[in-house]
Amino acid sequence: MGLTSLNQQLLSKIATNDEHGENSPYFDGWKAYDNDPFHLTKNPNGVIQMGLAENQLCFDLIKEWIEKNPTASICTTEGSMAFKDIANFQDYHGLPEFRNAVAKFMGRVRGGRVKFDPNKIVMSGGATGANETIMFCLADPGDAFLVPSPYYPAFVRDLRWRTGVQIIPVTCESSNNFQITIEALEEAYNKTIEANVRVKGLIITNPSNPLGTILDKDTLKSLVNFINERNIHLVCDEIYAATIFRPPHFTSISEAIQDMDSNDDLIHIVYSLSKDMGFPGFRVGIFYSYNDEVVSCARKMSSFGLVSSQTQYLLAAMLSDDDFVERFLDESSRRLECRHKIFTEGLKEVKC
Amino acid sequence: MGLTSLNQQLLSKIATNDEHGENSPYFDGWKAYDNDPFHLTKNPNGVIQMGLAENQLCFDLIKEWIEKNPTASICTTEGSMAFKDIANFQDYHGLPEFRNAVAKFMGRVRGGRVKFDPNKIVMSGGATGANETIMFCLADPGDAFLVPSPYYPAFVRDLRWRTGVQIIPVTCESSNNFQITIEALEEAYNKTIEANVRVKGLIITNPSNPLGTILDKDTLKSLVNFINERNIHLVCDEIYAATIFRPPHFTSISEAIQDMDSNDDLIHIVYSLSKDMGFPGFRVGIFYSYNDEVVSCARKMSSFGLVSSQTQYLLAAMLSDDDFVERFLDESSRRLECRHKIFTEGLKEVKC
Repeated sequence: MGLTSLNQQLLSKIATNDEHGENSPYFDGWKAYDNDPFHLTKNPNGVIQMGLAENQLCFDLIKEWIEKNPTASICTTEGSMAFKDIANFQDYHGLPEFRNAVAKFMGRVRGGRVKFDPNKIVMSGGATGANETIMFCLADPGDAFLVPSPYYPAFVRDLRWRTGVQIIPVTCESSNNFQITIEALEEAYNKTIEANVRVKGLIITNPSNPLGTILDKDTLKSLVNFINERNIHLVCDEIYAATIFRPPHFTSISEAIQDMDSNDDLIHIVYSLSKDMGFPGFRVGIFYSYNDEVVSCARKMSSFGLVSSQTQYLLAAMLSDDDFVERFLDESSRRLECRHKIFTEGLKEVKC
Repeated sequence: MGLTSLNQQLLSKIATNDEHGENSPYFDGWKAYDNDPFHLTKNPNGVIQMGLAENQLCFDLIKEWIEKNPTASICTTEGSMAFKDIANFQDYHGLPEFRNAVAKFMGRVRGGRVKFDPNKIVMSGGATGANETIMFCLADPGDAFLVPSPYYPAFVRDLRWRTGVQIIPVTCESSNNFQITIEALEEAYNKTIEANVRVKGLIITNPSNPLGTILDKDTLKSLVNFINERNIHLVCDEIYAATIFRPPHFTSISEAIQDMDSNDDLIHIVYSLSKDMGFPGFRVGIFYSYNDEVVSCARKMSSFGLVSSQTQYLLAAMLSDDDFVERFLDESSRRLECRHKIFTEGLKEVKC
């Protein structure tokens, strides 16, 4: 008996399978960059990291804000009075001021056209944790979710690895600009059902990662009808909601369902501060569900990946500052557009 | 068809089962306290919370430290230069200085008689996340772990809920001061095997929660022999390692295996800063394994519950300060002893 089979007995199937997705071209790219990073003068032939979305464009604004708001910290003379309460705080509902601020921020990011209820906000360890939590709440091992392709490569880890849920890719074609059509959804749905696999829902990323496209209101409504007709869930990953720099404006699923007849208990949103604010290190994932039973279950699960109360406290103050949020989001869009222009013009000069 | 059975179809079995453990006497106690909290003058007949271990005794020392070390914060004029790098940081290995500081602190807490390797330290969202991660790495659904009773009530959630692993209580009797005997372990082990359930390991809490007792070196060695003979795992929850205030001194499993012939690939430690430092809000769970394959797998899983980089950065500085750590741990023991004395003497006055 070889070492591998011995270990397969000693460890779990999850530990010894490859569903974490790291043995994939996506992570090969990461490793290639780690081993040979590009530098303009020191390593001009190195690898450029284009697989990671890091928004660092507005940290000067954030730095300015935190210096002006020492009480938001529990690590300054002005703020350290709160250290004891905050470091000890561990309620899995989260600090009320944090949930309020996040709900308000989510509304602002979605153009102020919808309101979010702080009582439906659940914390999780980044969008990674939010994606997994939603699977654990909605599906049993072997159940399937439809996911239009191309999709975020780490969905393999987030959605499948520990939950045992299947991802069924819905083929979208470059010929129609990768639009999600009801025909493609029906085909994937019917094939899955025919294979005796239960379809529990549809997952969309809007704005799309990796495409950068956004779904219009009519398409969103047609997707809501699709899932309502089949009594399956719709999970909307909206972590790039504010990473928009030109028209058309972003439409959230929460806006689309406002004026239509839908069973909202089937609708769930994943959000995060990793992309729009550029805080991936803070691990602020948000799970928002219109289904109270799902909220209650997800909140119990959030014990596995709560946001540090130190970080909750800081962000509660920062995101509650309307003037700062307004200025940050406006400036972020402007700088993204500028960066996009420089980058795409640079790409034109690349000789293949 | 009632609402419940409809929801059971719509949601997962995990969402609709009771394995989260919140419908239990332990959580009934929490709710009773939440609804009617004791207050010396305002509510003298209220409920006293005795189910939650919160160490708040030395926050004056911590407050003093953070005020003297503004660069440890990314939220002060002195520290905000680091904000950009830290908020963006998201490597699931963790900040090297954080892992180094935690490894050093773990050694110091264990009397300096053992050294821990920073490369075997994995972050998780509190001990809650660490406990679950270890189950996902070691066992498949249906597999069992032996757990001497009485045990931490939330083990039900941490170890079983999402993993599908079973807990087999090993009955320990008050007649011998709840000692874990090899006879009791063998009985539980054999019964489980006879029921055709695979035993993957033994979980001990040392110091014990809820007993407050500690295991001596000979007992630890006998447990190591027990698991080695059967090629099963030993998981040691040592989250109260420094919450000791009188002899005998605490012996870590890492110390017990130093001078014996053991397959260390079977040994894993759960640690946390929630109890010894009193930082449950910061969600710093530590998973330490002597098995490199388990470390590698757990690190990939840690993406579901990483520690906020803001918190890692602060704690890296705090725990690297030898003088502070020394003083904190000494003072914490002293104050715990004093508090214990007041509390037990007060209990004697309670009329039943």
